Amino acid sequence: MSKGIKIVTIGGGSSYTPELVEGFIKRYDELPVRELWLVDIEAGKEKLEIVGAMAKRMVKAAGVDCEVHLTLDRREALKDADFVTTQLRVGLLDARILDERIPLSHGLIGQETNGAGGIFKALRTVPVILDIVEDMKELCPNAWLINFTNPAGMVTEAVLRYGNWDKVVGLCNIPVNAVFEEAALLGENNRDLFFQFAGINHLHWHTITDKNGKDRTDELIKVMYGQDDAKSIVANIKDNNLIWEQVENLHMVPCPYHNYYYYTDKMLAEELEDFKNNGTRAEKVKEIEHELFELYKDPNLDYKPKQLAERGGARYSDAACEIINSIHNDKRTTMTVSTRNNGTITDLPAESAVEVTCTITGKGPVPYNFGSFKPQERGLLQVMKSMEELTIEAAVTGDYGTLLQAFTMNPLITSGDVAKEVMDELLEAHKQYLPAFFKEGK
Amino acid sequence: MSKGIKIVTIGGGSSYTPELVEGFIKRYDELPVRELWLVDIEAGKEKLEIVGAMAKRMVKAAGVDCEVHLTLDRREALKDADFVTTQLRVGLLDARILDERIPLSHGLIGQETNGAGGIFKALRTVPVILDIVEDMKELCPNAWLINFTNPAGMVTEAVLRYGNWDKVVGLCNIPVNAVFEEAALLGENNRDLFFQFAGINHLHWHTITDKNGKDRTDELIKVMYGQDDAKSIVANIKDNNLIWEQVENLHMVPCPYHNYYYYTDKMLAEELEDFKNNGTRAEKVKEIEHELFELYKDPNLDYKPKQLAERGGARYSDAACEIINSIHNDKRTTMTVSTRNNGTITDLPAESAVEVTCTITGKGPVPYNFGSFKPQERGLLQVMKSMEELTIEAAVTGDYGTLLQAFTMNPLITSGDVAKEVMDELLEAHKQYLPAFFKEGK
Amino acid sequence: MSKGIKIVTIGGGSSYTPELVEGFIKRYDELPVRELWLVDIEAGKEKLEIVGAMAKRMVKAAGVDCEVHLTLDRREALKDADFVTTQLRVGLLDARILDERIPLSHGLIGQETNGAGGIFKALRTVPVILDIVEDMKELCPNAWLINFTNPAGMVTEAVLRYGNWDKVVGLCNIPVNAVFEEAALLGENNRDLFFQFAGINHLHWHTITDKNGKDRTDELIKVMYGQDDAKSIVANIKDNNLIWEQVENLHMVPCPYHNYYYYTDKMLAEELEDFKNNGTRAEKVKEIEHELFELYKDPNLDYKPKQLAERGGARYSDAACEIINSIHNDKRTTMTVSTRNNGTITDLPAESAVEVTCTITGKGPVPYNFGSFKPQERGLLQVMKSMEELTIEAAVTGDYGTLLQAFTMNPLITSGDVAKEVMDELLEAHKQYLPAFFKEGK
Amino acid sequence: MSKGIKIVTIGGGSSYTPELVEGFIKRYDELPVRELWLVDIEAGKEKLEIVGAMAKRMVKAAGVDCEVHLTLDRREALKDADFVTTQLRVGLLDARILDERIPLSHGLIGQETNGAGGIFKALRTVPVILDIVEDMKELCPNAWLINFTNPAGMVTEAVLRYGNWDKVVGLCNIPVNAVFEEAALLGENNRDLFFQFAGINHLHWHTITDKNGKDRTDELIKVMYGQDDAKSIVANIKDNNLIWEQVENLHMVPCPYHNYYYYTDKMLAEELEDFKNNGTRAEKVKEIEHELFELYKDPNLDYKPKQLAERGGARYSDAACEIINSIHNDKRTTMTVSTRNNGTITDLPAESAVEVTCTITGKGPVPYNFGSFKPQERGLLQVMKSMEELTIEAAVTGDYGTLLQAFTMNPLITSGDVAKEVMDELLEAHKQYLPAFFKEGK
Repeated sequence: MSKGIKIVTIGGGSSYTPELVEGFIKRYDELPVRELWLVDIEAGKEKLEIVGAMAKRMVKAAGVDCEVHLTLDRREALKDADFVTTQLRVGLLDARILDERIPLSHGLIGQETNGAGGIFKALRTVPVILDIVEDMKELCPNAWLINFTNPAGMVTEAVLRYGNWDKVVGLCNIPVNAVFEEAALLGENNRDLFFQFAGINHLHWHTITDKNGKDRTDELIKVMYGQDDAKSIVANIKDNNLIWEQVENLHMVPCPYHNYYYYTDKMLAEELEDFKNNGTRAEKVKEIEHELFELYKDPNLDYKPKQLAERGGARYSDAACEIINSIHNDKRTTMTVSTRNNGTITDLPAESAVEVTCTITGKGPVPYNFGSFKPQERGLLQVMKSMEELTIEAAVTGDYGTLLQAFTMNPLITSGDVAKEVMDELLEAHKQYLPAFFKEGK
Repeated sequence: MSKGIKIVTIGGGSSYTPELVEGFIKRYDELPVRELWLVDIEAGKEKLEIVGAMAKRMVKAAGVDCEVHLTLDRREALKDADFVTTQLRVGLLDARILDERIPLSHGLIGQETNGAGGIFKALRTVPVILDIVEDMKELCPNAWLINFTNPAGMVTEAVLRYGNWDKVVGLCNIPVNAVFEEAALLGENNRDLFFQFAGINHLHWHTITDKNGKDRTDELIKVMYGQDDAKSIVANIKDNNLIWEQVENLHMVPCPYHNYYYYTDKMLAEELEDFKNNGTRAEKVKEIEHELFELYKDPNLDYKPKQLAERGGARYSDAACEIINSIHNDKRTTMTVSTRNNGTITDLPAESAVEVTCTITGKGPVPYNFGSFKPQERGLLQVMKSMEELTIEAAVTGDYGTLLQAFTMNPLITSGDVAKEVMDELLEAHKQYLPAFFKEGK
Repeated sequence: MSKGIKIVTIGGGSSYTPELVEGFIKRYDELPVRELWLVDIEAGKEKLEIVGAMAKRMVKAAGVDCEVHLTLDRREALKDADFVTTQLRVGLLDARILDERIPLSHGLIGQETNGAGGIFKALRTVPVILDIVEDMKELCPNAWLINFTNPAGMVTEAVLRYGNWDKVVGLCNIPVNAVFEEAALLGENNRDLFFQFAGINHLHWHTITDKNGKDRTDELIKVMYGQDDAKSIVANIKDNNLIWEQVENLHMVPCPYHNYYYYTDKMLAEELEDFKNNGTRAEKVKEIEHELFELYKDPNLDYKPKQLAERGGARYSDAACEIINSIHNDKRTTMTVSTRNNGTITDLPAESAVEVTCTITGKGPVPYNFGSFKPQERGLLQVMKSMEELTIEAAVTGDYGTLLQAFTMNPLITSGDVAKEVMDELLEAHKQYLPAFFKEGK
Repeated sequence: MSKGIKIVTIGGGSSYTPELVEGFIKRYDELPVRELWLVDIEAGKEKLEIVGAMAKRMVKAAGVDCEVHLTLDRREALKDADFVTTQLRVGLLDARILDERIPLSHGLIGQETNGAGGIFKALRTVPVILDIVEDMKELCPNAWLINFTNPAGMVTEAVLRYGNWDKVVGLCNIPVNAVFEEAALLGENNRDLFFQFAGINHLHWHTITDKNGKDRTDELIKVMYGQDDAKSIVANIKDNNLIWEQVENLHMVPCPYHNYYYYTDKMLAEELEDFKNNGTRAEKVKEIEHELFELYKDPNLDYKPKQLAERGGARYSDAACEIINSIHNDKRTTMTVSTRNNGTITDLPAESAVEVTCTITGKGPVPYNFGSFKPQERGLLQVMKSMEELTIEAAVTGDYGTLLQAFTMNPLITSGDVAKEVMDELLEAHKQYLPAFFKEGK
């Protein structure tokens, strides 16, 4: 493709953008990105200008032929795009603070993608993404949508089910981080291990076999959870052992977010402590972001600063670049992404989004078949998928009862009066981003 | 069958026995029970004698030709039986009190068939039932096992999966009570309504259509939950409204035990109040039972006293008699029982036990096909079934990790340290009934 | 329902109509049919008048309060109908003669509902039935469609998939005849046996258990096929033993049309003999019908003549009356009909029509769950269902390639040149009834 | 693995062996085969010696450190093997001649792996392979079985279902040949195309996408079948166009053996012509093999002669070497092989063997998920799988009725008397290789 590639990044003012730019620069020889459009909204204009200026410096320093455009006009940007990446945050970090603090104020887990907070993040995000898809149908009908806006699994499913758009990949950095860090824990090169992940975004399990065909899963579980100094591999989840007899019984490695479901009491206690000290994750991230943007303002900074890695999204944008690269060049890289189930996991509906290990081809992700889970994993996965389906439906319809059903189904929300109260409070707090729930006449 | 029928009732000293006897007497013309063997264990000898004497008086008063045998020798009783009913309670009501009070002492739901208590009731019961099945293979290989020992669904699945015994029906009085009471609420004769139940024991949903083919489900939900004075139809669950918007969204009628899952906070608050006052359900039942046995001692009492209905098992034994009658006479009565799924509910494994509406034929229950649930019901049902599978496996193997997995999966148990502590305490408390967990060398 | 019932019979000039009228008369007390509209097309006017006059005589003789209307105006008739029955034959018996003779002229099975002929009967019939459904949506949206036009399974599936009309039942007399005749062969009353049928129209298998729960299937197979004088139970299939070792291996009773698939060489040889003598089934039926209409002209005949039974549709119309009765009165009669699969047979798509044993309720047929077939039956059933799906799709779209695919898939059609030639010849022969295939520009 | 690899080739006297040896020599650097044991039976001793001597010359000429052992003692060879390949032919080519000529003498397709002949090849082969597996359990429990004995799919399924041996891969050269030849037809490098195959051995379909993600399947179908000079890509199937409208309707590329099912009349006519001239495929192969062995006797020949390619198994042994290489080195080569379904194709049982595109890892083949077929392909695939299940069961049990059922189900066998006669004649002809069918007392 001699003409070069056009990328549109919606939520371009994000602090993650420098990693994305770095990723494109690194791959320029095989993936010649000639146009990078950073799109944001009015409220994000200042950030867009800071990060956009830095992106231009990075490109210039790298000496690659790539125009960086900054715009608040999404439709202008989307015209003839090859790939659209979405990394937006509806309501910014202030909305996330509410998603964390309101549930915690009632004694429930408050978290970006899990529990009541995760449901509300989906409610705010799904309509915006579906709007973007409608624009894409008109302006760039051959483009791929690479979504890394959370909750990435629900967003992907919404695009598949309600957007009727197949060219979508949902992306999360948990699997790629696990591959790197767990290989190190096993004393192996990650290329010598075969990781097979299956589940849904932020709730998947995986097995590991080595090049001799030996299953190393139990060994890794022992290394990670069988001793006192086990280390979590995700920055926004505290170091947190699971209970040995339970995790040993899985014979699959859980993902870091499983801590919310496998060790609820401890996670809640820690969150409540942070809540008391005004130090929930979003509150900390806000500080980190502030510092990052201060750094980005430096007119001499023309490379990704190491502080970005602490932000919690390590390898996120790099993984996004690699997916784009692999689709564009049919590279058949093995990656774990959210895509349509279609029988890969026989325990979930065919039309669901699942997060599974795939080979990324010119026609997009082709999943490795997984089959069925043991009861150890199956029921939790299934209840979460039902909860996701209800949440997505509520996001699209604005139906109060469907939303309350999702709350009732969610294992991190105590059902009953407390569920309804938290839900009502969150609805009120996020009112401006939830027009479907506050339509005239409702 | 001119020879008459031989029934063996294991746990024959139960306070429910008089209803069973009444049921057989009532049906004597079409179901000539000539031998009724009441079997119990040494610890239940006194009760067996009291209730056995009363059974003899009832039979005599009715003037039917039926011998009532009392025995502590199960194998003697089983020889050539036609039907075996199981209504035993391993550890008696004292064990149930522990199942209730230990979880409650940690702030978790404590209940006979749900949560931690329900899991432990399964652990104690499954091995005993599997022993009975082994005896049946030898002594009465053509007999049917009609189980109404709780948790009836898990017991049925254990018999199917681990006992390799197909002639088993699990029975509960919830569906039959719903049919009678909900018909009354709709102002209809129950025979003019078609109730279709699907789910698992103590966690099923149903729809109702009338003889004009009109779906009356939403109307009933409105009657039951749409106003303040809604009345529960199960004695051991307090009157307890569900939250209207959530239950309305189901478009299926939940069962009374759904309250634990749909209104957890309120149920827990009520149970904690009872706990404080030494008035948990088992404690109350113990009193009621004591009074019942005092009544049963009356040498003039030769009919089922009305106080038995208050015990909570209304229509239980009568339903058991009707199943036996319908199998024996191929009556094709429509009843809702626990039986092998085999595709009836496509959301659950084929080999699972499910509680579904069936026609009871000479070859046992033939389920009406159900199909798939909406996400509203599906995920909760599936997580509970996985939890059941893990519990049954733990009951058979005595594996600590599998049991902890069941605890972690159970929506009524907060996962983490509290789950493990409650589990350890219950294991210790019920040690004598759990030899698989306390084998030499474990 | 005091107002009385309105029935519309499309194809009312059929020779079967007197049985239908007899059926309604017999059930008048519980099923008060006050209006019976016999509808036919111009080409059937004479027959409609003959049979209509006779219907009026029958009603009068019976002394029931029922108006019989004869009309060529389908829409007038459909207005406010309660039940619509379809017993039409597009192209009349002359078309059926072509369906039989054209395949036979190429050495292939030529038959009304199987092979190339059956496919073409579907092509002619499906569009007409879908037109009727469109009228029903407008004129009698609460009515049930009781279809006994062949191929009844494909017609039912077309209504479900393409007509988006749920209130449809497909009816065939094979199962009801089997119940009566096989009970007699076993020396039992049919009410003492439980027949469970599963499969698709004209290709189902069944098991039989008696009131003691004993499986009598193998015994019946022995009676029917294990000796030389086995008798077929369907008039339009000659007495025809199956090969003992093959049928014994099924452990399910095949239906009479299985002979085409299980004994293809013999069936073909017999058909070719009839073909040579101008005595294919349709040619014979044409003669029988002529004689029947001569009888019907008799102004003194006011009851169903016994000669009708020889026509081959014994118990057809009576079964139709019984379905109507059972839906209208929520009688819960056990009958085997074509209805939506929805998981009843797990080997076939959920949205397929299947022919299975149901209880007929006020909301229509509720199937007994069946589960999975053994490989003995499974593959044949599945290939036939795929063939049906392709045929129905071709009927709706008029796509030549899809139709050729159905021909290629059909086990009774040798694939290749012969398939294409027979198909082309049939297309030409039935051109006037296949507008979808001969649209301008195709 | 410094110790070097031990390969055991059962049926080592096969004319294919030189290709296998060439394949190992070519890969010696990454796959150091230090021991190659060629095993054969007494009847194959002469061939074994000829081909074995040549293998030794090849190894010597290549200068690789590999000992070639020739033996008739299978158990001696198997001890501590790393990989076992099976390329045996029970009854040699003379048995295959019977498989072809007996059905043809009754007017039915006679073919090595399809129709009656393919069923009998399975009957002779399955018991021998299961014996080998029993030896492997004892002598080399960590070895992989790479089977390329036909019918490779049924053999693989027999090993999985009845041998309880998971480390098995079934191999066929059809997919690898398709990849090379179809890429050429499209004017592309095969590495730039993504072929996804799904189905069963000798009955699969595939799609092709290019590196731009464009589906090229329809284009290839047009190239292959849309013009008069279409060329078959398999040596033992004559050039044979399919009917354009039918194959176009598939939107998947059929495999060469589909000709038997899609163009039965033409294939049969051609086979009958060969039959008349004593020139069926096996008869021709016998001649070719004779010539090959004459060549192999040449003491100067120390490389694979080009005449071997004409034998019909082009790329067969090379594919086998590549699988071994990919497993041994965890190379993750994309190959299409027979392996356990486990949900890859949702239309077939989970425990079936399917032939699907996989990545070959250190733990064996991991299939790419496929999902569901359209009705165009589904029914034919399903009927063939049922037929395979019945055949395998008959091979294991020796049950006459089960075998007759497989014959009745097979689309290439006319059911009825002719099926039974052909079957009886084949049973008699192959009696010595079918002890299960001729046990004492049967």
